[in-house]
Amino acid sequence: MTAGIIGATGYTGSELLRLLSGHPEIGRIFLASTSCRGQRMEDIYPNFFKLFDSRPASGVLEDPETVIAVSDIVFGALPSGAGEAYAAACLERGVSYIDLSADFRFGGDEETYRAWYGGEWLYPDLRRRSVYGLPELYRETTKALAAAGPAVIGNPGCYPTAVILAAYPALAGKGPHIAAGAAVIADAVSGVTGAGREPGRAWHFPECSDSVSPYKVGGHRHTPEISRNLSVIAGRPVPLVFTPHLGPYNRGILATVYLELAEGAVGTETSAGREASAVRPKSAEIVEREEVIRRQYAGFYRDERFVRVLPAGICAATNRVRQSNYCDISVHLDQGGRILIVVSAIDNMVKGAAGQAVQNMNIIAGFDETLGLQALPALF
Amino acid sequence: MTAGIIGATGYTGSELLRLLSGHPEIGRIFLASTSCRGQRMEDIYPNFFKLFDSRPASGVLEDPETVIAVSDIVFGALPSGAGEAYAAACLERGVSYIDLSADFRFGGDEETYRAWYGGEWLYPDLRRRSVYGLPELYRETTKALAAAGPAVIGNPGCYPTAVILAAYPALAGKGPHIAAGAAVIADAVSGVTGAGREPGRAWHFPECSDSVSPYKVGGHRHTPEISRNLSVIAGRPVPLVFTPHLGPYNRGILATVYLELAEGAVGTETSAGREASAVRPKSAEIVEREEVIRRQYAGFYRDERFVRVLPAGICAATNRVRQSNYCDISVHLDQGGRILIVVSAIDNMVKGAAGQAVQNMNIIAGFDETLGLQALPALF
Amino acid sequence: MTAGIIGATGYTGSELLRLLSGHPEIGRIFLASTSCRGQRMEDIYPNFFKLFDSRPASGVLEDPETVIAVSDIVFGALPSGAGEAYAAACLERGVSYIDLSADFRFGGDEETYRAWYGGEWLYPDLRRRSVYGLPELYRETTKALAAAGPAVIGNPGCYPTAVILAAYPALAGKGPHIAAGAAVIADAVSGVTGAGREPGRAWHFPECSDSVSPYKVGGHRHTPEISRNLSVIAGRPVPLVFTPHLGPYNRGILATVYLELAEGAVGTETSAGREASAVRPKSAEIVEREEVIRRQYAGFYRDERFVRVLPAGICAATNRVRQSNYCDISVHLDQGGRILIVVSAIDNMVKGAAGQAVQNMNIIAGFDETLGLQALPALF
Amino acid sequence: MTAGIIGATGYTGSELLRLLSGHPEIGRIFLASTSCRGQRMEDIYPNFFKLFDSRPASGVLEDPETVIAVSDIVFGALPSGAGEAYAAACLERGVSYIDLSADFRFGGDEETYRAWYGGEWLYPDLRRRSVYGLPELYRETTKALAAAGPAVIGNPGCYPTAVILAAYPALAGKGPHIAAGAAVIADAVSGVTGAGREPGRAWHFPECSDSVSPYKVGGHRHTPEISRNLSVIAGRPVPLVFTPHLGPYNRGILATVYLELAEGAVGTETSAGREASAVRPKSAEIVEREEVIRRQYAGFYRDERFVRVLPAGICAATNRVRQSNYCDISVHLDQGGRILIVVSAIDNMVKGAAGQAVQNMNIIAGFDETLGLQALPALF
Repeated sequence: MTAGIIGATGYTGSELLRLLSGHPEIGRIFLASTSCRGQRMEDIYPNFFKLFDSRPASGVLEDPETVIAVSDIVFGALPSGAGEAYAAACLERGVSYIDLSADFRFGGDEETYRAWYGGEWLYPDLRRRSVYGLPELYRETTKALAAAGPAVIGNPGCYPTAVILAAYPALAGKGPHIAAGAAVIADAVSGVTGAGREPGRAWHFPECSDSVSPYKVGGHRHTPEISRNLSVIAGRPVPLVFTPHLGPYNRGILATVYLELAEGAVGTETSAGREASAVRPKSAEIVEREEVIRRQYAGFYRDERFVRVLPAGICAATNRVRQSNYCDISVHLDQGGRILIVVSAIDNMVKGAAGQAVQNMNIIAGFDETLGLQALPALF
Repeated sequence: MTAGIIGATGYTGSELLRLLSGHPEIGRIFLASTSCRGQRMEDIYPNFFKLFDSRPASGVLEDPETVIAVSDIVFGALPSGAGEAYAAACLERGVSYIDLSADFRFGGDEETYRAWYGGEWLYPDLRRRSVYGLPELYRETTKALAAAGPAVIGNPGCYPTAVILAAYPALAGKGPHIAAGAAVIADAVSGVTGAGREPGRAWHFPECSDSVSPYKVGGHRHTPEISRNLSVIAGRPVPLVFTPHLGPYNRGILATVYLELAEGAVGTETSAGREASAVRPKSAEIVEREEVIRRQYAGFYRDERFVRVLPAGICAATNRVRQSNYCDISVHLDQGGRILIVVSAIDNMVKGAAGQAVQNMNIIAGFDETLGLQALPALF
Repeated sequence: MTAGIIGATGYTGSELLRLLSGHPEIGRIFLASTSCRGQRMEDIYPNFFKLFDSRPASGVLEDPETVIAVSDIVFGALPSGAGEAYAAACLERGVSYIDLSADFRFGGDEETYRAWYGGEWLYPDLRRRSVYGLPELYRETTKALAAAGPAVIGNPGCYPTAVILAAYPALAGKGPHIAAGAAVIADAVSGVTGAGREPGRAWHFPECSDSVSPYKVGGHRHTPEISRNLSVIAGRPVPLVFTPHLGPYNRGILATVYLELAEGAVGTETSAGREASAVRPKSAEIVEREEVIRRQYAGFYRDERFVRVLPAGICAATNRVRQSNYCDISVHLDQGGRILIVVSAIDNMVKGAAGQAVQNMNIIAGFDETLGLQALPALF
Repeated sequence: MTAGIIGATGYTGSELLRLLSGHPEIGRIFLASTSCRGQRMEDIYPNFFKLFDSRPASGVLEDPETVIAVSDIVFGALPSGAGEAYAAACLERGVSYIDLSADFRFGGDEETYRAWYGGEWLYPDLRRRSVYGLPELYRETTKALAAAGPAVIGNPGCYPTAVILAAYPALAGKGPHIAAGAAVIADAVSGVTGAGREPGRAWHFPECSDSVSPYKVGGHRHTPEISRNLSVIAGRPVPLVFTPHLGPYNRGILATVYLELAEGAVGTETSAGREASAVRPKSAEIVEREEVIRRQYAGFYRDERFVRVLPAGICAATNRVRQSNYCDISVHLDQGGRILIVVSAIDNMVKGAAGQAVQNMNIIAGFDETLGLQALPALF
């Protein structure tokens, strides 16, 4: 297969190139960039120097139209609002389009998209051929759609991937019972690559290294994407509080998700009086309930190749999934057994972007889902 | 005044030495260490090389007893359970003892202490002369205690300092109304100095750099310390969920604290049906309510020299308080106006340990509370 | 082929497992560890969790003898002095042994080995079947040796790989003329993974993060290994000054190598008097000479798949070779045109250890030299 | 005294504000910025939030002219070429001017300045009232100049400070004999704050974190400044090769300086033949000679408050001088005893810029040289 990447010079585009270069079913890779047309990719990313000597990729950045015309699959690694026309052109040519922006993550709900991203949809009808590309939720839908013709994949956002996979088993009703009215609280940290390639003060090394800080509290654009999918999973509106933070490292998102249990042990709050309310370490009983939920999670994700539910005693950590498509999940209860705490870790550039896009391509094309994604994470 | 530091070779001890060396009312500083007795501090900490040439401190590590015998104030920078006898010896000599372990953070509640830290109290009566040394809560108690004779200060833990100061105005009933039954969720990240000086795999550079991960989920020893004080503030038991994380940087704790508002706008959860529940960006009305709460916080802390409630648009960040005694606080609402999100940042070694200990010394001795703590934080 | 790794739990061993797992010609991988025998690799390295579900590797750490008995190629990732018997056992079984310690890096010069590493050789005769495994120098020797029977490869050290590849073209006499008597000065920085897996104060995050410092100045064990090979290349003794530094990052060695040119422009030192000696920016003529040498370097390494001589304007950097087997080289002159400055960058765990070992295996086995090593470096 | 800072919004300016705020002899501090006039410093640097509530500084950025008119001492923290007119205005008002750019670092040698920095001097005569402000070299000249009237101090560059202090004792002829013709090789690493406050790709966190790389090899502007001063010290032209690197940390320069000894032991290079040239570990005799030179260095700097010559066994490291005005120096010989390797570490923002400027102010004003600079470095 020949793959095309539109918007190849951004971090997500460069990561797609890196992953696709190692994919056994990808023959040639064409790169497009409107801003850098005519330049060579290795002059922009010297880490790719000599790559194009030995691999079937021209390495010169071309027009999107030129790339679409020769590709069997096209990836759009563009800002939200910039790729609809390319998606339309792909479908017209009979080629699927995997979009890494937010344009196709909201089904037909243009109102929500507009409220958070601004702008109007130029080709609203494309959504009829689109699916939210989180394979763990929509693998079968994606397969069915692709079987019926070329499709548009709305590749999920990085934070949504981490948060949704953490909450999915609990909200799907096959594990612990979650309190219906309570808000899901998702507290997440991202590495700085999440901010993309353009320099700015917030990502200037001296001002973000050696520090951690939240941003866009109560206002991050990934909020409606997460909320929407949690509500679909639960079959009812799920209130969501989502707080992203920036951490002083390159790759990885860690999401710590708090879910109130319906059957929550009423440990701390029933006692009267101050000393009586003193909290105690996790009891053996609560540790046991924790293990039950952990097994429910492990069972839920048993057949997922890229989700690893960690055994007791190991917490999810971003370094253990670095440069891999894994989502690691650790399952915990608070000392009172009242709140379920699920921690998920992904590489924001892989499972949170380019890797998941390749996974979606594999699903569409009928390849083994792990092709091109089998590199193991190093610990360091 | 002559100051003594017992346990001077640990990170907290070395930080006390650094701060006290610049304190205008401290004449001489004596250092004690049972494990390194006879060695010179600068051989253990070469960053202090030449310090003892020009300053009134011998620089040789001595017996605790020797140090207590010549000091006007004694700091105990020891593991929990190791300092009670020194505290007793100090009181006997008529000298106050500022303890940086957990031994004096629980008032007379030995049961809670024992449940989390193990061990028995050797001198339980010392608690009658002790106070929890969070000046913003207990300044007057501390003053009164010190006025009556030598005292023992239970210097607060690092996480508790950050979390309690974030929640204090809200739970004290003078600001927003907090839902009575709901758990306070405190999600916090600490730099690696919090783990202390002893090497171990979890803090081996290649295994913790470039990564973030939670630890002791639902089981960290600071949980009862935080819970106890939040309950005292609220005048009722406050259920607490506390999740510490390790971040790849040296200094600083960031606490993101979630408090459910009693009068919470019922934004997202009343609508019926899936699309209807779609979340919208923060409305002007909610932004205004956020500003009201921010002003309540600023008013609450108006007279506190070391608490800075940040204006709208600036989020608390650990790098802006590095090497200072400040606690920065930013106040936010979620997009639905239902959850109050308060973010606090401290330097875990300063306001979270040695700086707060110096602040307590200043209070006891009747000095200006900022003496020795006036160094400004650099941004980098 | 079936591969065995002895000493699998060290960082080098884990990196070998990671690389060999993606090698298309490796069927099964067996792991040995004397200290952790019976444990599962994924319990020691949770980043490998689930790996052994889908791959042909048992994942249980076994006896070295057991592993040798079933392997077609054996890697020794052990401390110096610990692997000779395994090498002997391999040869006896007719299997080649790739040694990542210093045991086989000195040919028959036991005296030098003993002077720097201590200990006696138990099987000195093994050196007759061994070769220094720097493919760019000894590819043909290695091939010839392997053709004649099972061989022992002395896989080069990390610093030596970086320094030797930087100096090789200049000292080989096919490029610029180097002054015969002058010392080669090699100033290098390594990431902390170079220190291995055992925690220690020097690699405790708070004491090495955010800092750079030299160590073992004038006394690092890699000195004789570098010196020996530079002398072989030059055909005369080459005095060497080698200064290693520790840098606050995980992977990568950067070597800045200074070579005095024989025909050096006598720019600064001939003028008489102080103002006259004032240095001027690089002249066009010197820039041109620099480009000539750069082309000589590029020509010298033309056929090397893993050496990239960078074009003018780009300096070697460790992040551009991270997780790859590349050695990037940039070529410069000082402003006076008197000193050649060659900068090389490798990933110390890949080209500096496990990757080069796989490259050697490929050479021995007659595979394409890049098999299993084709993953591209990401920039971040 | 009232101090003025022109160019207060750059990193150097903010660091001056931080240090001067703690200086016991500085009453008020006025800030000037042409680009941010009218803004409040704390809106640009939120780390200074609340500073101006309690300190004698207005905190509003004003015109340079306004600030000059009310100051007793003025600091220029401006790009090279931008401050001459302010220096002239200060002298006219009878006030000294401490310039942190390169404008006054070359005495009357405009030709060298122009060759490296471009631009013409508008007030060349100002150099008659100027001195190169490296106190360890020019303390007495500075005192004499200031005694005669207002002066202009050319505050040294960061790299020059580190390199010159490392080489000074050796080249001054009072210690080891240095080979006359040989080039001094200075290999240095700087933290990213050295690049200043403006964001750019080279300092974008994802592209410089976790990496080390040289830049401007053979062409850095600090070369003539270092070269000039080494030549003055030696009393003869000293050829210099200077290679700066960027390291993934905020503060600190480490300079590793190689000086060829005249009486160099002819260890490695006399032997004939390859095996004979094998290098051996440092002999006891060479260790002894190393110690002699170390003592010469310590003696040379005996009276310097900010230079610490480290004892044997400790290498200079940037983290041990962080946020301090110290220059740490460690002294080594290579294994052959032929090359003297001196390593120096400074905080580039303190001894390399703002701290040295304050030191110069202290000298001019007749204060104790350590006033405002007594804060101890923390190890972390």
